[in-house]
Amino acid sequence: MAGSTFGVSFRVTTAGESHGPANVVIVDGCPAGLPLSLDDLRPDLARRRPGQSRLVSQRAEPDDPEILSGVHEGLTTGAPIAVIVRNVDAKSRDYDDLAGLYRPGHADYTYDAKYGHRDPRGGGRASARETVSRVVAGAIAKKLIARSGVRVLGWVAQVGEVVASIPDKTAVTLEEVEASPTRCPDAIAAEKMTALVEQVRKEQDSVGGVCEIVALGVPVGLGEPVFDKLKADLAKALFSIPAVMGVEIGSGFRAASMRGSEHDDVFLPGDPRALRTETNHHGGTLGGISSGMPLLLRVAIKPTSTIPRELRTVTRDGEPTTVRSRGRHDPCIALRFPPIGEAMVAIVIADHVLRAMASPAFRAIE
Amino acid sequence: MAGSTFGVSFRVTTAGESHGPANVVIVDGCPAGLPLSLDDLRPDLARRRPGQSRLVSQRAEPDDPEILSGVHEGLTTGAPIAVIVRNVDAKSRDYDDLAGLYRPGHADYTYDAKYGHRDPRGGGRASARETVSRVVAGAIAKKLIARSGVRVLGWVAQVGEVVASIPDKTAVTLEEVEASPTRCPDAIAAEKMTALVEQVRKEQDSVGGVCEIVALGVPVGLGEPVFDKLKADLAKALFSIPAVMGVEIGSGFRAASMRGSEHDDVFLPGDPRALRTETNHHGGTLGGISSGMPLLLRVAIKPTSTIPRELRTVTRDGEPTTVRSRGRHDPCIALRFPPIGEAMVAIVIADHVLRAMASPAFRAIE
Amino acid sequence: MAGSTFGVSFRVTTAGESHGPANVVIVDGCPAGLPLSLDDLRPDLARRRPGQSRLVSQRAEPDDPEILSGVHEGLTTGAPIAVIVRNVDAKSRDYDDLAGLYRPGHADYTYDAKYGHRDPRGGGRASARETVSRVVAGAIAKKLIARSGVRVLGWVAQVGEVVASIPDKTAVTLEEVEASPTRCPDAIAAEKMTALVEQVRKEQDSVGGVCEIVALGVPVGLGEPVFDKLKADLAKALFSIPAVMGVEIGSGFRAASMRGSEHDDVFLPGDPRALRTETNHHGGTLGGISSGMPLLLRVAIKPTSTIPRELRTVTRDGEPTTVRSRGRHDPCIALRFPPIGEAMVAIVIADHVLRAMASPAFRAIE
Amino acid sequence: MAGSTFGVSFRVTTAGESHGPANVVIVDGCPAGLPLSLDDLRPDLARRRPGQSRLVSQRAEPDDPEILSGVHEGLTTGAPIAVIVRNVDAKSRDYDDLAGLYRPGHADYTYDAKYGHRDPRGGGRASARETVSRVVAGAIAKKLIARSGVRVLGWVAQVGEVVASIPDKTAVTLEEVEASPTRCPDAIAAEKMTALVEQVRKEQDSVGGVCEIVALGVPVGLGEPVFDKLKADLAKALFSIPAVMGVEIGSGFRAASMRGSEHDDVFLPGDPRALRTETNHHGGTLGGISSGMPLLLRVAIKPTSTIPRELRTVTRDGEPTTVRSRGRHDPCIALRFPPIGEAMVAIVIADHVLRAMASPAFRAIE
Repeated sequence: MAGSTFGVSFRVTTAGESHGPANVVIVDGCPAGLPLSLDDLRPDLARRRPGQSRLVSQRAEPDDPEILSGVHEGLTTGAPIAVIVRNVDAKSRDYDDLAGLYRPGHADYTYDAKYGHRDPRGGGRASARETVSRVVAGAIAKKLIARSGVRVLGWVAQVGEVVASIPDKTAVTLEEVEASPTRCPDAIAAEKMTALVEQVRKEQDSVGGVCEIVALGVPVGLGEPVFDKLKADLAKALFSIPAVMGVEIGSGFRAASMRGSEHDDVFLPGDPRALRTETNHHGGTLGGISSGMPLLLRVAIKPTSTIPRELRTVTRDGEPTTVRSRGRHDPCIALRFPPIGEAMVAIVIADHVLRAMASPAFRAIE
Repeated sequence: MAGSTFGVSFRVTTAGESHGPANVVIVDGCPAGLPLSLDDLRPDLARRRPGQSRLVSQRAEPDDPEILSGVHEGLTTGAPIAVIVRNVDAKSRDYDDLAGLYRPGHADYTYDAKYGHRDPRGGGRASARETVSRVVAGAIAKKLIARSGVRVLGWVAQVGEVVASIPDKTAVTLEEVEASPTRCPDAIAAEKMTALVEQVRKEQDSVGGVCEIVALGVPVGLGEPVFDKLKADLAKALFSIPAVMGVEIGSGFRAASMRGSEHDDVFLPGDPRALRTETNHHGGTLGGISSGMPLLLRVAIKPTSTIPRELRTVTRDGEPTTVRSRGRHDPCIALRFPPIGEAMVAIVIADHVLRAMASPAFRAIE
Repeated sequence: MAGSTFGVSFRVTTAGESHGPANVVIVDGCPAGLPLSLDDLRPDLARRRPGQSRLVSQRAEPDDPEILSGVHEGLTTGAPIAVIVRNVDAKSRDYDDLAGLYRPGHADYTYDAKYGHRDPRGGGRASARETVSRVVAGAIAKKLIARSGVRVLGWVAQVGEVVASIPDKTAVTLEEVEASPTRCPDAIAAEKMTALVEQVRKEQDSVGGVCEIVALGVPVGLGEPVFDKLKADLAKALFSIPAVMGVEIGSGFRAASMRGSEHDDVFLPGDPRALRTETNHHGGTLGGISSGMPLLLRVAIKPTSTIPRELRTVTRDGEPTTVRSRGRHDPCIALRFPPIGEAMVAIVIADHVLRAMASPAFRAIE
Repeated sequence: MAGSTFGVSFRVTTAGESHGPANVVIVDGCPAGLPLSLDDLRPDLARRRPGQSRLVSQRAEPDDPEILSGVHEGLTTGAPIAVIVRNVDAKSRDYDDLAGLYRPGHADYTYDAKYGHRDPRGGGRASARETVSRVVAGAIAKKLIARSGVRVLGWVAQVGEVVASIPDKTAVTLEEVEASPTRCPDAIAAEKMTALVEQVRKEQDSVGGVCEIVALGVPVGLGEPVFDKLKADLAKALFSIPAVMGVEIGSGFRAASMRGSEHDDVFLPGDPRALRTETNHHGGTLGGISSGMPLLLRVAIKPTSTIPRELRTVTRDGEPTTVRSRGRHDPCIALRFPPIGEAMVAIVIADHVLRAMASPAFRAIE
């Protein structure tokens, strides 16, 4: 049943397969009067796009968006914004010999079981190609929440065994992130990551990683108690992205071995409408509601499932066979994650900013 | 805006505060004809209840549920099932002196900012008391999915530095879990955990932990592509529980340092409608859709924020003050997590079983 | 699948059957800080209650509400508000001999087909008894929208052939409506209606009617384009009430024989933020968005299906039989409709007021 | 806030303005394996299209749809189906002089109040141009429910004072409907309607009408109790269409003057899984759930608001002015209603067929 819509008040609906004619996204609920043009969409699309360095897939997609509705004379009208991005370099023939078998680590088997037939071309709807729609919606969300002073930035913090050292997560800049094709702002770690990814590619293998995403300037009061906590919607948003295996907020799994006396973040005296805490183990939400402190998120990303080796697997009849993928793939999908993760975080924040506006108290603070 | 409803087809709505008259839950969408009585609700309520051992809070709540609708002559009717659990031992006076300040690690500040005023009694809606409603709904969900052969079980895998050793996560039994008040099925670790929790309590401190939850017998084909992936809804469900700081599925954060050749789970030859994989790094979903392999989830839980020490904090005016909590609290909230986490996992599975029924192919497999 | 929730931002979920222990309603999304007590709920419950005059059913329900959550020291907290109303005078034995057959005009057959078994006691969930929950939620909604100056009032405009004459629908008062048990503000028509209902009762029959509902003070800008138009949500809300067969807004079916030159409501010069139209054929929405003019709604209500006569029907096996109902019923259900219809209209307006707050332009106008 | 999505399980999201680049629709939830091609979309698009006879608007749109996703080798895949229809003949210059004033009967004022600025070109999102997306989604829904034997047909039953005589509403054929540009299957009435519409056009006026829509073969058991009754969702669907002022099911407003003894539809002995009633005053739903009898709906449509006369109105500053529309418009919009109304009815039935599949009892009947 319908699972292609995300959000309540800033509502994103997507359609499109890896090898179909186009990816389509409708953003419903964006307020009127926001300046919006293709130039707002292109930078993050460019960051997400394959073929940018030899570290990533060589599929060559221009990823040229077209806005079909919701914008008039450079301003959003309040009507739903539809954007399409056509697929150009879809080499379906790469996938012809996969139709009769199930690739390990992929959705081939589960889609087949669910739908009774499947689109074998490049993973169809399960392909990471659909994230192009998320990035478009995320660019709109970023523009919207920037008005409230919110800024979202993500980077690669780990590739395989290489772990970056980032002393102050709130001080990282986009320039530092984009300085290396690894998107790791720690230049020394970035170099090691580059070497590791190249080595892994030569070994016809792939490797996992960790991405960190930080949101600064988040107003206090976002998120709804109980089920629609901000941290819950963020976790869903990030786990909905292909290849994500884990999500942490604030102290994350380190909290398990901490004491309360150490973990409790002490409030500092100050403006009662904009309190700060001395530390930020909570990661920006208390009771699931944003505290005004930076949102600190970490995401674990599995190694790309497709590797250009011969792998054991089974046919659609359950008989043993082998498979060797020929499609163009990334040796470390984590490197392309930051703009996608940022997009989902921005969408969640935009949704909750609009949701919070129904609360008179929230608006007073604003 | 409204955030007290969870699920699409198996839809759970809750209400109730820690120190109000009662907690209320309405489960809408449960099919007709399911045998259901109070005896189905009581065991998990008993597991969740405070006051069961000296390791947990001494608040004495009978947690007696009353079914107000949706059941006729021992069978569900298809109408919404309403259940209330009255609060009995709510000692609001314990909270009188907290009204003018913000406790560290709690939702006091964020609720105040959001709503302009707050219910200071025991955390109000932000208190873990609301999880009694989740456990009721979860018990109904468990009963429903048991018909499809699904079984959900959770346990404590880590407390502070003490890490359990559980060689086969699919073989743990409820008896093993409940054998110790720590809910750790590794008897040796359980003993160390007990000692640690007692020590922490003596030190007027608290400690975090990790809970693992496994679902066996999950049919292949649950979850919807893109946003409503099974893993995404599970992550949201678990992150919506108070104190949760991280969630992993399958390999989780270990995936970051793995190679694709190691992580890819090879399909074993066999019945094409019930394939198995040799390993289970994917943790039970592929492309976000259940694979039929066990669902493997891990949850990081922070140390209880309330500790019976004097802590620095601020008043509602942002002035420095100190606070010493007198309410009855758990030194390690993780010990009480398993029935709550199980409930949320069962609710998600029940929801997706009903959602999947709209797919003719899914039903064929059934 | 789950159909017991109404609204997006002001979200009402109900449970409860005619002859179960209680009716339950959870209102989620009501802003914090609204004064609310049982005294706000009782007047409309009293208006809806059976047994008030010999014109209506003699079932004697005290309809005493209990607030279980969401209110602290007389103010809403922003948390969901749960209210229960226990059933007291449920005479299930009246229904014992109905279990094996299908009553004409009732939901017996359709529920049986849908759920495979049904609760024969007084219609179960299909009984108008569930409207007690709507009236509770409606009373909260009325209180909320009164802050924005909105007032909702309904009355009986037709019973059988007797049609009231109400020259100015915006000038009717609650006192005029409640002056007669028919709830018709035209005293002469009210007398004829009384006579007609008594005659129909003597004839062991029932009769239909029309109810009119007007909302004054509705701010301009409520409703969302395309599917969630204000008129669309109002129509759904009213058609969701048992026995409703038709809904009109403004000119309604009279529009079919009108010319555009006559129907177009001319704007009058004035404050551009509070324009008025010379006439109000549009009935308060233009493009589905509220215009600031009075909302004018008309609802057709069928004659009560249960009449105390022997009627031909069939058994659950499709064999011919007869049925004579003994339950206590209304000869003209339309007389009890106004508080229920008002409640649903108020809920829709409350929902759209909160939804509109996400639009900065709307708030400016406010 | 987001109002461009309709349906729960068969979920339709639209975007697009009258004079923007294109209309876009995403249908999410359509099961896999349904044969679908452009040829399934074209016939209803052709029926809806302007410029087909001199009775309707002369805007010349080819209405050529393009399917961008969700279909592979002629079959739906289970993924969302995106379709775009480009606007070609949008003459925005016709609207240039309308930017500073509010047309009577239009959404100009309400949109301006809601969004703070508006797209003056042809009504933007409020234009009936958006119904092209409804017709596309409706064509997919029709194809889906045809598998269950459901057929939906609408026609014009009244134009101004001319009322058609249709003795058996369940026997009307598409050929009879499309035999006249009035879409009235009563040939004698159709001729009078033609004359009336031509006269009205000459008088630079417009006229209202009534459309009837019938659905045959609807399975028993569709609709959810209380709020999501089938009749409630149908009413919302129809009232969401521009120009609709009233909706009736079955006896509609005639029920007001009927007696219960006359209105109650007696069940006829027969197969207990497919009962019929002697009469069909209920119009196909009992307790809001489909009874298996034909769904009988009537819709009142106002006269087109735009008439080519000089009309009094006000400027955006509330000052008096006059307006004379030059856009191409229909003298009787009701004539173009049938394919649009059918589409919405088909979408509601498709949605509830999928929703009902979550009920094991419903499937047993299937």
